[in-house]
Amino acid sequence: MSNRTSLKQQLRYYRPCNTSKPSMLDFVNKAKWDAWKSLGSVSQEEARQQYVDLISSLVGTEAPAVAAQPTGSTKGFQTLLVSTEDNITTIRLNRPEKKNAITVEMYNELIEALDLAGKDDSVITVITGSGDYYCSGNDLNNFTKIPEGGVEKLAKESGELLRRYVKVYIDFPKPLIGVINGPAVGVSVTLLGLFDVVYATEKATFHTPFSQLGQSPEGCSSYLFPKIMGAAKASEMLLFNKKLTAAQACEVGLVTEVFPESSFQSEVWTRLKAYAKLPRNSLALSKQLIRVVEKEKLHAVNDAEVERLVERWLSDECMQAIMSFFQAKSKL
Amino acid sequence: MSNRTSLKQQLRYYRPCNTSKPSMLDFVNKAKWDAWKSLGSVSQEEARQQYVDLISSLVGTEAPAVAAQPTGSTKGFQTLLVSTEDNITTIRLNRPEKKNAITVEMYNELIEALDLAGKDDSVITVITGSGDYYCSGNDLNNFTKIPEGGVEKLAKESGELLRRYVKVYIDFPKPLIGVINGPAVGVSVTLLGLFDVVYATEKATFHTPFSQLGQSPEGCSSYLFPKIMGAAKASEMLLFNKKLTAAQACEVGLVTEVFPESSFQSEVWTRLKAYAKLPRNSLALSKQLIRVVEKEKLHAVNDAEVERLVERWLSDECMQAIMSFFQAKSKL
Amino acid sequence: MSNRTSLKQQLRYYRPCNTSKPSMLDFVNKAKWDAWKSLGSVSQEEARQQYVDLISSLVGTEAPAVAAQPTGSTKGFQTLLVSTEDNITTIRLNRPEKKNAITVEMYNELIEALDLAGKDDSVITVITGSGDYYCSGNDLNNFTKIPEGGVEKLAKESGELLRRYVKVYIDFPKPLIGVINGPAVGVSVTLLGLFDVVYATEKATFHTPFSQLGQSPEGCSSYLFPKIMGAAKASEMLLFNKKLTAAQACEVGLVTEVFPESSFQSEVWTRLKAYAKLPRNSLALSKQLIRVVEKEKLHAVNDAEVERLVERWLSDECMQAIMSFFQAKSKL
Repeated sequence: MSNRTSLKQQLRYYRPCNTSKPSMLDFVNKAKWDAWKSLGSVSQEEARQQYVDLISSLVGTEAPAVAAQPTGSTKGFQTLLVSTEDNITTIRLNRPEKKNAITVEMYNELIEALDLAGKDDSVITVITGSGDYYCSGNDLNNFTKIPEGGVEKLAKESGELLRRYVKVYIDFPKPLIGVINGPAVGVSVTLLGLFDVVYATEKATFHTPFSQLGQSPEGCSSYLFPKIMGAAKASEMLLFNKKLTAAQACEVGLVTEVFPESSFQSEVWTRLKAYAKLPRNSLALSKQLIRVVEKEKLHAVNDAEVERLVERWLSDECMQAIMSFFQAKSKL
Repeated sequence: MSNRTSLKQQLRYYRPCNTSKPSMLDFVNKAKWDAWKSLGSVSQEEARQQYVDLISSLVGTEAPAVAAQPTGSTKGFQTLLVSTEDNITTIRLNRPEKKNAITVEMYNELIEALDLAGKDDSVITVITGSGDYYCSGNDLNNFTKIPEGGVEKLAKESGELLRRYVKVYIDFPKPLIGVINGPAVGVSVTLLGLFDVVYATEKATFHTPFSQLGQSPEGCSSYLFPKIMGAAKASEMLLFNKKLTAAQACEVGLVTEVFPESSFQSEVWTRLKAYAKLPRNSLALSKQLIRVVEKEKLHAVNDAEVERLVERWLSDECMQAIMSFFQAKSKL
Repeated sequence: MSNRTSLKQQLRYYRPCNTSKPSMLDFVNKAKWDAWKSLGSVSQEEARQQYVDLISSLVGTEAPAVAAQPTGSTKGFQTLLVSTEDNITTIRLNRPEKKNAITVEMYNELIEALDLAGKDDSVITVITGSGDYYCSGNDLNNFTKIPEGGVEKLAKESGELLRRYVKVYIDFPKPLIGVINGPAVGVSVTLLGLFDVVYATEKATFHTPFSQLGQSPEGCSSYLFPKIMGAAKASEMLLFNKKLTAAQACEVGLVTEVFPESSFQSEVWTRLKAYAKLPRNSLALSKQLIRVVEKEKLHAVNDAEVERLVERWLSDECMQAIMSFFQAKSKL
C-alpha cells in the first residue's frame, strides 16, 4: 500500500512540467530506482543481492551470452544457430542464459535468417530454442538505449523493426514449423498463428501478458487467435493474461501436437525428416495457396497492431503498468 | 394426427381471401384459440388449468415482474439492475419470474445500459441474469400488440429494434463478459459470439431453436458461429436446434470456461475483480484492435440477418411452425 | 535403393529430348511398366498376380461395376443411387468395388444429381457411399485416356470439371449432410468443409495425401480447413498427409458427431428424418444466410485452387511423386 503511494509520488517527482514527457521506454532506469527504494528495511547486503536478482530477471546482465556454437555449415550469426541438413533449415534462438529473449540484434538476425531460409533449397524451415526456454519474448533491454531523437524516435524505430519482423513470417514461402522446447512468452507466442505446424513439449507454456504491461497484441494475433480458437478463448489470453499449458494450447488449436518431454526431440525430428522428403514444390505451393487468401488482411493487421503498440509505448499508462509490475516483483 | 388436420383446417378458416394476410405475429391469439380447441375431452376445469399453464409458459401473465431491487448507485431501469463497483459495471437481467425473457422495454433498456456502460469509467462490463435462468430469449408478448400499421409495421419495428440491439454489442468499446448463470435461449445465445469472455455455470445450456419456429439466426451468429466452431458444429445448432450443455459449448469455443455451480459466483467474480485492476486503456484498445478487423463485416451480417428475419416473421411458414410448436406443447 | 536408382534411369529413358514432355497424366502406363520392372526375382506367376493387385488397387479393372440397384423413384444414373423419401434426397456413391472412386462420369452425374436435389422439394440432401468406403477420392483412371490435344488439354479439362464440381457444393441452396459410412480420401474429404453437417461412423478415416502425390489441396480446403481447425492442425493434414481418425476429425470440427458402427445408420437416419420435418424455407434461407457471407470468397478460392492443381498435374515433380509412390507400393 505505502509502496503504491510512493510509486505515484515518484512518478510525480519524475514529471516536472518543464521536462519532456517520460514514457515506458525509460522504465528500466526507473525500475532500478524504485526497486532500491522499495527494499525498505532489508540489509545493505540483502538489498544488493535482491537488486541484482531483479534486474537480471528482467533485462539480463551486460555480460556476453555464453551460447552453443554452430556446427556444420552456418552463417555467422551472433544470437542464432542456423544450419541446413536433410533438406531442413533450422534456426535456433541461442541466448539460453537470457531465456532466448529477443534483442534488437536478434530481431535483425531472425529477419535475415528467415529471408535466407525462404530462398535456400531446403524443403521446410524450423524455429526452435537453445536451453530450457523456447523464447521469453521481447528483451526489455531494447528500450534502455534512448537514441538522440528521444523516446518518440525509439518507439517509432522499435515499431518499424517489429513490423518488418512479423512481415517476414507473413510472407514466408515454404512450410514453417515451430519446435517449442519450453516456455514461450509474448511475441514468440503471438507469432505462432503464422506458423504452419507447431509441435510442443509437454513442459512448454504459452503466455501473452500484454495488458498487464499496458501494451497490446502483435504478430497478427488480434486477428488470428480469434480465428483459431474463437473470441471467448482468445480474449482470455490476449486481454486477461491467461497462461496456457501445452495441452490447453493444443486443445484450442494453437499447437498441433504435444509430446512427452522424454521423447520430444526424437519423435519430432523423425517426423520432420520424413516431411522434408516430400515434393518440395508441392509443399511450397500448397502452403502459399493456404496463405494467399489471407495475406493482404494479415499485412493490414500487422500495420494496425504496430501503430497501436507504438502509441501504447508512449503512454503514461504503459509506463505505470510496467513499473507496478516491477514493484510487485521486487516485493516477492 | 387429427390435431394436425384440424390445425390446417383452422388455418384455412383463419385465412379467407378477403382478409389481410395473417402472420406469425398474431400467433399468440391463435395459440389461445388452438390450444382451447385441441383440449378435446379433458374436463372444463382441467382445460382451464392447462390453458393457463400453456400461456404462462409462453408469454407470461400480465402481472408486473417481482424482481430484485437495485443496490448501490444505479440508474432507474425497470427490467434491469445496473450497478458499478470495483471498476465493473454489471447489467443484470431482472425478470426472473419470466426467465428474463426480453421484452421491447428490456431491449430498449439494454441498449441504453450498454451505451452508458461503454462511456462510464468502469474497466469491464458484465451481463448476467437474476434467478435460475440467464435469459430465455425474445419475449413472445412482443408480437401481440399489433400497432395501427398492422403486422408489416410491427415486423419492421421489431427488426429495427433487434438491429440496434445487436449493433450496440458490435460497437461496444471495452471488454464485455458474460456470466451465464443458467439456461440461455435464442438471441441471448447467438449474441455470445460478440462477447469477449463467457463464463458459465455447469447447469447452463445453450439453445437456438430457430428453424423449429420457422425463423432464422441473428446476433451475427450466421457468421460468427461457423467461425468459432466450424460449419459442421454451427449448423447443428443454428439449423437443427441442437441444445448444447455448458461443457459442449466450452468444447466448441462458444464458452471460455465452465465452473461447478457451487463455486461459480465466487470463482468468477474473483477473476473479474482481478481483471478490472488491469490498465483500462490497454484493455479497451486491445479489445478494439481485435474487433476492428471484423467490424464492417459484422454490421453487414447484422443487417442481412435482420432483413431475413423480418421476411420470416411475415411468412406463413413461420406462423405455422410456431402454431405447430404450441400444438405439440399443449398435448404434453 | 537400387529401385530408386532404376526409377531415375527409367525416367531419363522415357524423356529423350525429341519427344513431347511427359507428365503425371501418363503415370498409370508408367506405373505398369515400373511395377513390372521392379518385381525382380519373383516368379512369372507371382509377378502377374502382384501386378494385377497393384493396378487393381490403384485404378480398378475395366470390368463394369457391380453396384446396388436403385429402389423407389430415381433418375437413371450409372454411378449413383439417387432417391427421395421422407423429404430427404439421398445421393449414394455406388461403385463399392472401386471404393467409390470418382470417375469422370461420376463427377458429371454428381453435378447433375446435386443440381436436381437443389431444385426438388426435399428439405435436406444427404450424400453417402455404398459398401465399406465412403469415397476413395479421384479415380486415377481419369488420367489415362489422353485426348487428341494431349496432356495439357486433359489437365485443363480435368481442372474445369473439378471447378464445376466444387462450385455446385458452394452454391447448394439447402442443408447438405454427409453420412460418412467409411474411409474418405482426397477430394471427398476436402469438400466436407462445404457440408452443413457431417455424421461419421467410428470406422471412418479422413486422409488428404496431396503433397505425397505432388499435388495441392482443392474443395476450398485451403481456406476452410484453417478456418475450421486453425492452421496448425490444417497444415498437418493438407501439407503433411496426416490421416485423421473419426474421433480426431470430430475434435477439430471437420465432423459434427461420431457414432458407433453398430448403431450408425439407425441413429443418423432417425435424426435426419426429424430434421426433414422442420420448416423447409426456414432451413434453406438460414443455410443461405450462413453461406452468403463467404460465397464470393469461396468461388475465388475454388478458382485459385484449380489453377494451381492444373499446373501441378503438368509438372515433372507431380509425375515423379506419383511414380515414387507406386514404386514404394509395389515393394510392399
